[in-house]
Amino acid sequence: MQLTIRPAVKADSETILQFITELAVYEKAADQVIATTKKIDDCLFASNPTVFALMAEVDQQAVGFAVYFFNYSTWQGQHGLYLEDLYVQPAYRNTGIGRHLIKKLAQIAVANDCGRFEWSVLDWNQPAIDFYDSIGAKQKEGWLGYQLAGDALNHFADTP
Amino acid sequence: MQLTIRPAVKADSETILQFITELAVYEKAADQVIATTKKIDDCLFASNPTVFALMAEVDQQAVGFAVYFFNYSTWQGQHGLYLEDLYVQPAYRNTGIGRHLIKKLAQIAVANDCGRFEWSVLDWNQPAIDFYDSIGAKQKEGWLGYQLAGDALNHFADTP
Repeated sequence: MQLTIRPAVKADSETILQFITELAVYEKAADQVIATTKKIDDCLFASNPTVFALMAEVDQQAVGFAVYFFNYSTWQGQHGLYLEDLYVQPAYRNTGIGRHLIKKLAQIAVANDCGRFEWSVLDWNQPAIDFYDSIGAKQKEGWLGYQLAGDALNHFADTP
Repeated sequence: MQLTIRPAVKADSETILQFITELAVYEKAADQVIATTKKIDDCLFASNPTVFALMAEVDQQAVGFAVYFFNYSTWQGQHGLYLEDLYVQPAYRNTGIGRHLIKKLAQIAVANDCGRFEWSVLDWNQPAIDFYDSIGAKQKEGWLGYQLAGDALNHFADTP
């Protein structure tokens, strides 16, 4: 098995949408996927993109991906790397591909002088939690996530 | 009281560091602040920054700020706005300044075609939680945050 990790290019958009959808099905959120290849192109393959993807290929066939961007820590005064999506197709799991993707991202974080590398995981996704624990990652505790989205966001932006 | 919300400029760096530190003291994390004005300049006032700040001024004196960047939702296939820090000095709290800052950010999110506007809050910060609930924001449930930082990040990046 020849594994290659490489930056995504525009020709990967359809595969990226396929992997986003497959991951959302696993995450029981397929109904929330409204991404299209055009939307992916407009963000990931813009002239100065701020979101990026890596493709994992086995024998030149894409079998997984990672989507990431750079966030920011005010305490550190420097950027961090945030992993938005990590996915490996079922037939290729437990072969070290996820670990290779995560390691490549850690290297990108270090190369870009990032103080930290962060991501989120669904609390019932025990295989992923076990994997993240095994690589020495620490669970962030004590923080609650908040969100304004859709109509609530538009309404609040419009209120006097 | 004349309130102004404006984008931060490089001359605000010292004030921004002061507010970052004051907020970290409130968050019981002052020991984690290693930011400097140079680090702030290098990120917020780079030639193509990906992290931004708003200053809140009362009678032309800065009394609060917000730091934000654009994240990304694979499900939506579009950017979101992430609020990293929101702070108003104690003497100016409960006067609507925080609400004005949040509203300006919601408008920036809408203007930039963001599908969602997100932030995190410490689970013991009840005044902030009550405020976020009051503006119609929803708590994100079921996600655990993970982090590789410092030595653990460098070590993992270096492992074969």
